[in-house]
Amino acid sequence: MRLDTDPYLERYAARVQGMSASEIRALFSVASRPEIVSFAGGMPNTASLDLEAVEHVVAQLVREEGATALQYGGGQGRVELRELIVEVMRHEGVPAHADDLVMTVGGQQALELIAKCFVDPGDIVIAEGPTYVGGIGALSSHQADVRQVEMDADGMRVDLLEQLLTDLAAQGREPKFVYTVPNHQNPAGVSMSVERRHRLAELAVSHDLLLLEDNPYGLLDFDGRTWPSLRELVPDRVIYVGTMSKTFAPGVRTGWVAAPAPVRDKLILLREAADLCPASFTQMLVERWLTTQPWQDQVKRFRTVYHERAEVMLRALEDEMPEGVEWTVPAGGFYIWLTVPAGIDTSDLLAKAIQHRVAYVPGRGFYADGTGGQQMRLCFSYPPIDRIREGIVRLGELLHTELELVQAVYGGQIPDARERRPDEPGPQLGG
Amino acid sequence: MRLDTDPYLERYAARVQGMSASEIRALFSVASRPEIVSFAGGMPNTASLDLEAVEHVVAQLVREEGATALQYGGGQGRVELRELIVEVMRHEGVPAHADDLVMTVGGQQALELIAKCFVDPGDIVIAEGPTYVGGIGALSSHQADVRQVEMDADGMRVDLLEQLLTDLAAQGREPKFVYTVPNHQNPAGVSMSVERRHRLAELAVSHDLLLLEDNPYGLLDFDGRTWPSLRELVPDRVIYVGTMSKTFAPGVRTGWVAAPAPVRDKLILLREAADLCPASFTQMLVERWLTTQPWQDQVKRFRTVYHERAEVMLRALEDEMPEGVEWTVPAGGFYIWLTVPAGIDTSDLLAKAIQHRVAYVPGRGFYADGTGGQQMRLCFSYPPIDRIREGIVRLGELLHTELELVQAVYGGQIPDARERRPDEPGPQLGG
Repeated sequence: MRLDTDPYLERYAARVQGMSASEIRALFSVASRPEIVSFAGGMPNTASLDLEAVEHVVAQLVREEGATALQYGGGQGRVELRELIVEVMRHEGVPAHADDLVMTVGGQQALELIAKCFVDPGDIVIAEGPTYVGGIGALSSHQADVRQVEMDADGMRVDLLEQLLTDLAAQGREPKFVYTVPNHQNPAGVSMSVERRHRLAELAVSHDLLLLEDNPYGLLDFDGRTWPSLRELVPDRVIYVGTMSKTFAPGVRTGWVAAPAPVRDKLILLREAADLCPASFTQMLVERWLTTQPWQDQVKRFRTVYHERAEVMLRALEDEMPEGVEWTVPAGGFYIWLTVPAGIDTSDLLAKAIQHRVAYVPGRGFYADGTGGQQMRLCFSYPPIDRIREGIVRLGELLHTELELVQAVYGGQIPDARERRPDEPGPQLGG
Repeated sequence: MRLDTDPYLERYAARVQGMSASEIRALFSVASRPEIVSFAGGMPNTASLDLEAVEHVVAQLVREEGATALQYGGGQGRVELRELIVEVMRHEGVPAHADDLVMTVGGQQALELIAKCFVDPGDIVIAEGPTYVGGIGALSSHQADVRQVEMDADGMRVDLLEQLLTDLAAQGREPKFVYTVPNHQNPAGVSMSVERRHRLAELAVSHDLLLLEDNPYGLLDFDGRTWPSLRELVPDRVIYVGTMSKTFAPGVRTGWVAAPAPVRDKLILLREAADLCPASFTQMLVERWLTTQPWQDQVKRFRTVYHERAEVMLRALEDEMPEGVEWTVPAGGFYIWLTVPAGIDTSDLLAKAIQHRVAYVPGRGFYADGTGGQQMRLCFSYPPIDRIREGIVRLGELLHTELELVQAVYGGQIPDARERRPDEPGPQLGG
């Protein structure tokens, strides 16, 4: 996998201020060189998949049901697969019925269809800050006005959400929905506390809110724990998005959305207009994976793989980062969110980082309003484990040098590069 | 493949006037019974694929490149596949460069992305009448005002298009683009004459038009002939859509769009917002199909399979249809477009047809304005060849009975059920 074909990375990069598309392309073309340790692309470690099992499954599929696997299918997705997905959801305690589900091209298509279904230009959608860049992409492509609520180690600051809702109501406005990634969030690497989930569910009822719960990483808690889903707490007010991309493989582009019946029916129509139907071939491959293979063992293996990598990265950060650098401590998922001291801009720093043979995603990609200049996302899931420390050492050296430069130029008068707005009430996550 | 999971059929059905979604679902649930001969679903004959070859290809893919095939990829699609698609296009004489192409989830996603890129609510888009229902679906989902130009045996009446453009200009309006399926059109089963292609290309220049050329069936001419593509004639004014769904298999959901660079760049961004990237797995499967298998022999086999079926259907129509029924004579593709005498409504007739154990798609599905009540689409590509005559015999019996009824009720005063507007200048295709 070459870095320059990583859609996450290109999309993040496109949001980095002050760089043209061709500069970004040139940069990532360089970043794809093997000597560079990349913490940029948010990719699962497909090398840890049992490929022999996949080969067996796929050959058997073509042999036994090839003509069907290669044919068109229904727009909602195969009922056989939807029934199996209900079982997958049950592993996290998320209630669903096969009729509730619409299969999508990864979780991303679910976000796109939901945006198309609900968002007219200028409509407000509330999200976490930072949030998944693909969520911002889908919402922005329908000209949503994305407002972000800051996070801390316990996830979205639901108190600030409540305040925002009050402020909006005073202006006679209300959001179309609230988008959240409650488990091992991309990019923040934190999860929403149980207390806040309950508080958010209460707010949904009291403020007549629709919640969009996006859960790609819920089964990837390092210790196998699960949290109550919002869908469990207030089922009628939640559109839930899931994916096989992180528990099996993104290359099969198999996600789903569970929604109340009227929304589900609309999503099926939009899905048919978008691309007729999910690929029968990959749907049936996933069906066989879930029925004939020990898929939960594979998930456990992924957890171990990611836990080990996270530990290595966290130890290296402790050892190598200069004073003033802060980061989140993930309990699952793929990501660490790192905040550098004032005076350093992570967008500006990226070219130098790549010269130092290490890559990351600048924080601005995860905000709709251009904040995030002091943050970066480090992904530990994809690089080979023995290269993680090497990459962090390089990043640490670079940050040491930069901080010396900042001190030399500004002395004690370091400007705040975080672009915090005057009305922001508290410290940002990692800030 | 059950009929009630055919997205084409469900979509068509949803456009049939006077039926609720549940009635339609009930109807097609009945229609999926094996005793019914269905000419409804527009599906390729995947049973004619060399499935042993597919099994070999797919097993080898996982064995040799499994980790990459199961990973994310770039939003534009793999360059390796795009280079091969250029070769496929060259077989029809359609010029392209791999950089021009964006891979999509079948041709349908290309139509959706183009609609999203160009259409604001109320914008006019011109299409053939009848036209591909999925094209109407994609355009309508972006609230396009679809105006249809009637066809005859030589395809779109380009003279009427010119008149429509003049009328629109007089109102100070212009269409966003003109959508055409020039080869073996779905549902009309006719192709645009060479003369009209040239005339349409001239109109594109003189009226500053953008053309959307959708070509799923170009390689499926029964005699292997090809026509000049619009992209060949006026490349800068054409967005071209292709698919592997009819020459290989729809189950891999592999289509593409070739567009001028500024449009291409926008489509890549929209595609990433829509679903991040095409499935690496199916892209690499198609690559191996095109490089390691005699894919052109498979196309020839499909041509033979479809030609035989078309001949059987045409002979049966000659033998079985009552006087006054007319139909198009396809030289390729999947479809025959049939027109019944005034007094019969094909939407109303569908339930009776299914009672008579034969199914078709009523003509109204192929018009945005509810016309098409005297037409139906018959698809000859999917049913077993030995059941085609049986189905046409049943349809013929039904039409004989209906015509007797119409004569008994109306005598010589049969109302014109075609809903022709007063300003329509000539006979509709098949009328």
